[in-house]
Amino acid sequence: MTELTEVLIESDKVFEGRLISVRKDTVRLPNGRTSTREVVVHPGAVAVVPMLEDGRVILVKQYRHAVGKILMEIPAGTLHPDETPEECALRELREEIGYSAGRLEKLTSVYLAPGYSTELIHLFLATDLQPAEGETDEDEFLKPVTLTLDEAIAQITDGEIQDAKTVAALLLVWSKQMSREITSI
Amino acid sequence: MTELTEVLIESDKVFEGRLISVRKDTVRLPNGRTSTREVVVHPGAVAVVPMLEDGRVILVKQYRHAVGKILMEIPAGTLHPDETPEECALRELREEIGYSAGRLEKLTSVYLAPGYSTELIHLFLATDLQPAEGETDEDEFLKPVTLTLDEAIAQITDGEIQDAKTVAALLLVWSKQMSREITSI
Repeated sequence: MTELTEVLIESDKVFEGRLISVRKDTVRLPNGRTSTREVVVHPGAVAVVPMLEDGRVILVKQYRHAVGKILMEIPAGTLHPDETPEECALRELREEIGYSAGRLEKLTSVYLAPGYSTELIHLFLATDLQPAEGETDEDEFLKPVTLTLDEAIAQITDGEIQDAKTVAALLLVWSKQMSREITSI
Repeated sequence: MTELTEVLIESDKVFEGRLISVRKDTVRLPNGRTSTREVVVHPGAVAVVPMLEDGRVILVKQYRHAVGKILMEIPAGTLHPDETPEECALRELREEIGYSAGRLEKLTSVYLAPGYSTELIHLFLATDLQPAEGETDEDEFLKPVTLTLDEAIAQITDGEIQDAKTVAALLLVWSKQMSREITSI
């Protein structure tokens, strides 16, 4: 099977919200049949692993209404219009944990739920952190938590950290560190 | 700040689709203000890392209409009603790559986009694989790709693998193997 691509036949916007909008698309499948695809349109996002000089990382506890739970996540947020992913990363660090970062390293970009959502999230590692002046967002309710990277990885394995972007980004940082350590042996 | 939880005041269903539905909720924030939350309701899903006896893993290339791209992903699918995550994992392995698995190991469960989606995905490692009789789904258009785990991790680092659940699950499997190797040194 060489042909995988679907062709858009018709697109209807069914919801326009503040954060997301929703389309109901009709597509032609590779075998000629038609099918519908429900698409959540999202502006894209950024998430950042903030790492202190001693190697500890800063996460935030945050209530997530969609899942009805407090989750432990790395600082993250939605891209504003005309903002680069790097600018967004620095803004979220300042608003959510009150830090500025001297260095941002791109880890990768991933689609969170490509079966129905357009959302692409850019993952960064932030180092050379300095406390920033009090500009945290007053409508964000967050509780910062500082952990060693090993503690964070243990919380992933134990199922205490349940947020996909956080799992992906922390494991990416850990795998980079491991690769460096193995190479240096 | 000890109180993080939001309280639901009102909920309106704004879209009912085949896969997802969408609600617009009004919530009371911890500071007493109100805000709206757009919620995509999803039945939940399962994704599986299928690992052959020689340690290679099987991924699938698949066109994703929401992002307009062919992505490389581990086999995955939406939970059917009354299906356990384990049953769903075995069904998706059969339908997507034509294998049965003698052993399923739960890796973790993660929320993919908890800012707006209820979707919880259960991640598994499947081993003791055997080819199953021809029962693959004729409306799924997939191209299986077999890689060593190191090749897959390299594709994550290079940005060729761009699917969040695939990144999280493969790195979890890799971190388990690394931890075992380090312990045995």
